[in-house]
Formats: sequence, C-alpha cells, structure tokens
Amino acid sequence: MKVLDSKKGITSVAGISAYGDYVGIKSTGKNDFGVIFSESTASAAMVVTKNKVKAAPVLVNLSQMKKSKGKIKAAIINSGNANACTGKEGIKNARKTISLAAKELGVSKKSILVFSTGMIGKQLPMEEMKKGITGVSAKLGKGHYFDDDVAKAIMTTDTVKKAITVKYDNIVVSGIAKGSGMIHPNMATMLAFITTNAKFTPNQLQKMLTESVQDTFNMITVDGDTSTNDSVLLIAANKNKTKAQKFQKALDFVCLELAKKIVLDGEGATKMIKVIVQNASTEQDAKKAAKAVAQSPLVKTAMFGNDPNWGRILAAVGYSGAKMKQEKVDLYIGNYHLVKQGQPRKFNKKKVSSYIASNEMEIFVDLHMGKKEATAYGCDLSYDYVEINAEYHT
Amino acid sequence: MKVLDSKKGITSVAGISAYGDYVGIKSTGKNDFGVIFSESTASAAMVVTKNKVKAAPVLVNLSQMKKSKGKIKAAIINSGNANACTGKEGIKNARKTISLAAKELGVSKKSILVFSTGMIGKQLPMEEMKKGITGVSAKLGKGHYFDDDVAKAIMTTDTVKKAITVKYDNIVVSGIAKGSGMIHPNMATMLAFITTNAKFTPNQLQKMLTESVQDTFNMITVDGDTSTNDSVLLIAANKNKTKAQKFQKALDFVCLELAKKIVLDGEGATKMIKVIVQNASTEQDAKKAAKAVAQSPLVKTAMFGNDPNWGRILAAVGYSGAKMKQEKVDLYIGNYHLVKQGQPRKFNKKKVSSYIASNEMEIFVDLHMGKKEATAYGCDLSYDYVEINAEYHT
Repeated sequence: MKVLDSKKGITSVAGISAYGDYVGIKSTGKNDFGVIFSESTASAAMVVTKNKVKAAPVLVNLSQMKKSKGKIKAAIINSGNANACTGKEGIKNARKTISLAAKELGVSKKSILVFSTGMIGKQLPMEEMKKGITGVSAKLGKGHYFDDDVAKAIMTTDTVKKAITVKYDNIVVSGIAKGSGMIHPNMATMLAFITTNAKFTPNQLQKMLTESVQDTFNMITVDGDTSTNDSVLLIAANKNKTKAQKFQKALDFVCLELAKKIVLDGEGATKMIKVIVQNASTEQDAKKAAKAVAQSPLVKTAMFGNDPNWGRILAAVGYSGAKMKQEKVDLYIGNYHLVKQGQPRKFNKKKVSSYIASNEMEIFVDLHMGKKEATAYGCDLSYDYVEINAEYHT
Repeated sequence: MKVLDSKKGITSVAGISAYGDYVGIKSTGKNDFGVIFSESTASAAMVVTKNKVKAAPVLVNLSQMKKSKGKIKAAIINSGNANACTGKEGIKNARKTISLAAKELGVSKKSILVFSTGMIGKQLPMEEMKKGITGVSAKLGKGHYFDDDVAKAIMTTDTVKKAITVKYDNIVVSGIAKGSGMIHPNMATMLAFITTNAKFTPNQLQKMLTESVQDTFNMITVDGDTSTNDSVLLIAANKNKTKAQKFQKALDFVCLELAKKIVLDGEGATKMIKVIVQNASTEQDAKKAAKAVAQSPLVKTAMFGNDPNWGRILAAVGYSGAKMKQEKVDLYIGNYHLVKQGQPRKFNKKKVSSYIASNEMEIFVDLHMGKKEATAYGCDLSYDYVEINAEYHT
C-alpha cells in the first residue's frame, strides 16, 4: 500500500469527477457548495449518526439508499447550513435539492444523496442551492484541482483540510473528511466521502464500511458529543476487481487516517492521545476501556498539562464497564511503565512529562484478562476548547 | 421540615459525637483526621462507588458491613491519602486502623468503618493514623464545634464546607459531604456522612439510602468521572420512631442539598445547571437524557459563555439513548421557550443570555413521550476547570 501525494484527491479514481464553489450560504465567502459525480452508476455504502436527532438530509439519504439499493450517481453537499431541526420544510428542501440536481445532471432522483453541515435550526437557503446546482454538469471536473474546491466546501470550523489517497496494487482508495468538535456551536458534524475504483456490490461495500467505521471513526473522540449530521459515504466506481480482504485493508487505512486528522484538528487540541487497551476479555471491553480513557475530561486536562496522572487513567478504566481486576492492570505512558499489577512504580516524572509533551502520545493499558485489543484516539482538553465553545456567538 | 442553622451539625443527633484534628498527613497543616462515634450501637447503611477500581477502605468497609450486619459504632476518617491503588499493604493498613480504633474506643472490630480521601498510590501513613487514634476516646465531643473539626477533616480541593441539618417533627437528619471534581489529581472522591436520631433496622436504612442516592448523588456530575473512594454512610442512633415515608423525605432533602453543594463547588464551576426532563417513557429514559445534557462538554461550555445554544442540548438528548421523537420535543431555558416540537422559536437572545448568567439556571426538556420525569445537576465548564486539572502537580 502506498500513500499518493495526489492533488486530484477523490477524483483520482477514474470516472469520478467533482466540483466546489462559493454560492453565498456562508457569510465568510469561503466555499460552501460541492458535487461529487460518478460517470457510471456507482455502488455506494453509507454510515450515519446514531443520534436520534437526525438532520433532514440524513433522513432523506436513508430513504434514498433504500430506494436505489445503493446504486448512486451523485452527492450534493453544502456547508454553512446543516438543515437540522428544520421539520417538514427541511425534508422538503432536501428533496427539492435532489429534484433540481437530478434534472441538471440528467439522472434519476433516487440516485442522488444530499449532505449538509453548518448552522442548526435555519431553513436551507434554496436560492443559493439552486445557484450552485444550475449549470454544474458542465463544470464537473473542470477548474481547479479537486482539493481546492470540494474539500474546502465541506469545511466549517476545521483549521486544515483532511484528505488522503492510497494505492494498493490496482486499487485506489481516496477520502476527504471534515469535523473538529463533534458539534460546534450551531456548526455541526463529521462528514467523510471516500471514493474507490474497486468493484463491489453495495451490500459488500456496506459490510466493509461498517467494519471500518467501527475501528476508526467510531473510536475517535473530541468531546464525546455526537452530531445530528454525521455521515460517511463510500462510492465505488466499479472498475477494478480485487479481493475483499485487500480492499478492506486499504479502506481501514484511509478511514483511520481521516479519523486521526479529525482528532488532531479537534477544537483547541494541542496533542493526540492514542489509547491502546490490550488483553481484554472481549473486544467490546477493550473498546469501552480505551474510549473511557480517551474521553475522560480529567485524563484530557492532565495530558494538556503534561501530567503523568496514572490514577485518572486507572479510574477511567475502572468506570468504563470493562471487565477488569485492579491487581492485574499494567499501565504505560509511551515506554514508561507506571503501574504494575495495579500498583504504582517509581518513575522519572520529568522524562514522562516531556514524552507527553510530544504531539502524538500513547497510553497502554494491559488488563491481563484475555486476548482482545482496541485502540481509541482522543485529544487533550485545553483553554482553547473552552474558549472556542463558550465564546462563539452566532 | 425545617432547616436548622446548627453549629453542632451531625452531632446534633443525641448520642452521636465526633472529633477532628490535624495529625500530619496533609502538607498544608489543615485538618486531616476525624472520628464519628455512636454511644449505642447504631444502624448503618452505605453506598459506595461503582468503579471497579475500589480503594482499600472501600473494600474493607464492604466486608465490615457484612460481618456486622450494619450494626456500627464508629467511622474513622482521614484526608490527604486515599489508600487507593495500594495493594495488599493498603488492605492491611485499613485493617490495622480498625484494630487500633477498636482498642482505643473499646468496641468490637467489626463495628468500625474506615474512610480515606486524598493522594492515590501512596501507603497510608500509619504513624500519623496512630497519633490520631491514640487518646481519641477522651476527646470525642469535646473541643470545637463539630463543624470546625470533622467537616474540615474531610475536605481536599473543596473551597467551602458542605453541611446541612433538618428537623422533621421529632426526626433530625444531618449530613456533611466533600467532593468537587470527581477525582482531583491524585486527590480523590466524594464522601458524605449522614446521621439521624430515627429508629430503623440496617436493612430498612439501606433500602432508603439506596433510593435517595439514585435521585441525588447519582444525578450530579462535575466532569463525568467517578472516583475509587466515593462513599455515602448513613448512621441511625435509633432513638425516635417515625414513619419510613417521612424519614425518606427528610433523607432525600439532605442528600439533595449535599449533592447540590458539591456541584456548586465543582472545580472551576461558575454556575449550577439544573436539567429537568419531563414526560419521558420511563424513569430510566428521563435520567439518561437529563444526565447526558448535564454532562455534555458542549452544553457546559455554552452555559459558561451564557450562550443559549439549544442545538447542543437537543443533540445531547438525541445521543443519550432515551426514547424520543425529535418532532415532539419542547425545550426551555428558564421560562424561555426555545424549541417547540423540535423546531426553533424566535427568542430574545440577550434576555435568555442574561438569565443563564444567574448562578442557578434551569433547562427543561419535555419529551412528550410518557409521564416520567428526572432532574440532573451539573455545572459549567470554565477555563478554571482546565487550569485546576491541567496544572496541578503533586
């Protein structure tokens, strides 16, 4: 597997084109509208937020995927407005967007999905959406590189663009993502779009995407809040055959890299915290423990302060719900062995502290209860997180 | 029911005496040792942390309560050292404390409980504990008022003493508590001690205490972390008969007042956030939703910033796991009706913002799904929380 330094990003997959522009939704004048288009009908898989408060585009997409059985032609994306908590009119606007795009692109309505991110509780500005859609079929794949257009069109509070492309033998997998706080003040959401030239049925893709998301996007945490609009879309252009196992590996890698980029760009984050829990009784236990540590405000603030506070880590494992025996737990920060069989060891605090200060640090917890393992990714909790989230006013 | 402004605190119950002093465990010179003593054998009930990492005194107390069947004479308390993550020696030291105290007080070993709070991972300093215990039987009930001695002996990062006494007909219920962050850097724990003159069996008390704790101590959250040492002890001197219902009411009140005092003294907290969820399908659902809102870092930071960010509140309800339909939800901050049937209403942002700025604010969520209700208590998340928890070094 090779990481490509491709400026074409998700359009490096043959048959996939894209477009992005500013149509007047954001007040900042930055890109707020984008389209991803597949020349031939693509196989698609989608994973969406488990939040019971789902935005209109999420609800509409779930119904679209059923109707089309995962056979997709285009994704219409906007930022600056989440079309969430917008009631029946929100649903109507999402459907209207689909109608307009179907007409413009000359494809069936059921083959179009819609994605929105931004302000909650305001109706989608349909004049601007219409402006974006009108004439877009002639613009697809033209103009700037993809990177400079669609990838920017999905950004809200993100400070950096998040994209990665890999090649594995004859298979290309490429993705873009956005998200920093799980919900920014009325500016929502984690979104990811992944394209590939691989050939799979929608059912096969769905199984593989669900699998990937479990160990990647679902194992990251900025603040533990989940948004109303979170969606991951995988589009396969169905050109090249490959083994499922090989494709899964490439997909896992792309999802993990995008997930890590989101964490590193977490609101106010100064460092990434990788939490590896080993030798748990079950995978579920390993995940629970790893996520509890990555999500604990006390662990997060300690890591921000470069404080090797193993007591907080141990306590988080203790309340995670994972099966454990305190007297069996070993705990490391980096290579420093801080707790042996549940009891503290002597360590050089200065050295551990300066290790924590690096911007990607690791916590290992060995439960000695079984053979299962999981990794969670979090970030620290800084003054800036409070500032961004307390002092933002719309 | 009447709140008494009693300086005698938990010793206003006839037959209960107490003592507190500095014996050299804390480096600050502040009180770090205390005893609560019952002249006649008292009925006791105890609720402890659900964290799987339990401190030595918690483990020893669980076994003591079994042996004594809840018939208790004394509680030996120290702060400055949590006796947590201390392995077999920690257990030995807790048992040694009990032996020393049994001898000094002339009571059976099984009638004594031990409580510790403070640094994690260091062995209990037995010389200092011995110093506290030696001669204490002559000092019980003498010296300063109770308030100035034992109540202070349980404080760690607390900035104010937390105590309340109520009288309900012939029944007195009085309590003291400590706790600010759920775990402060190596300085753990929520502890509460409640005394009463009421007459009940240990089994009756246990049922009532468990009931009270569910709606009070278990419904507060500072940072969502739970400690290794959390304990609530209820001691009944068995003097006055009363109806269970009446006693439950007084006990609920005392537990709730203590719980609220803990939240208001939360690390860095500038205000209390009371979250009331109404008309849920089940009580469990109401609790889940209320706690999710009170615990959300995004809600907490918004309230710190006096930002009426209803979107974050709605999203927290959505991921809480409670049964809900977005289009049914009504949401209020104070008397301001912000969301009707899942959709935002127009409101005066300045007015709502200045309401939030008050130091006890309320959020109402009406799910319109059933008839159950629950209330959770949280505090906001400020710069000071990050400072206290990031920059504390032992």
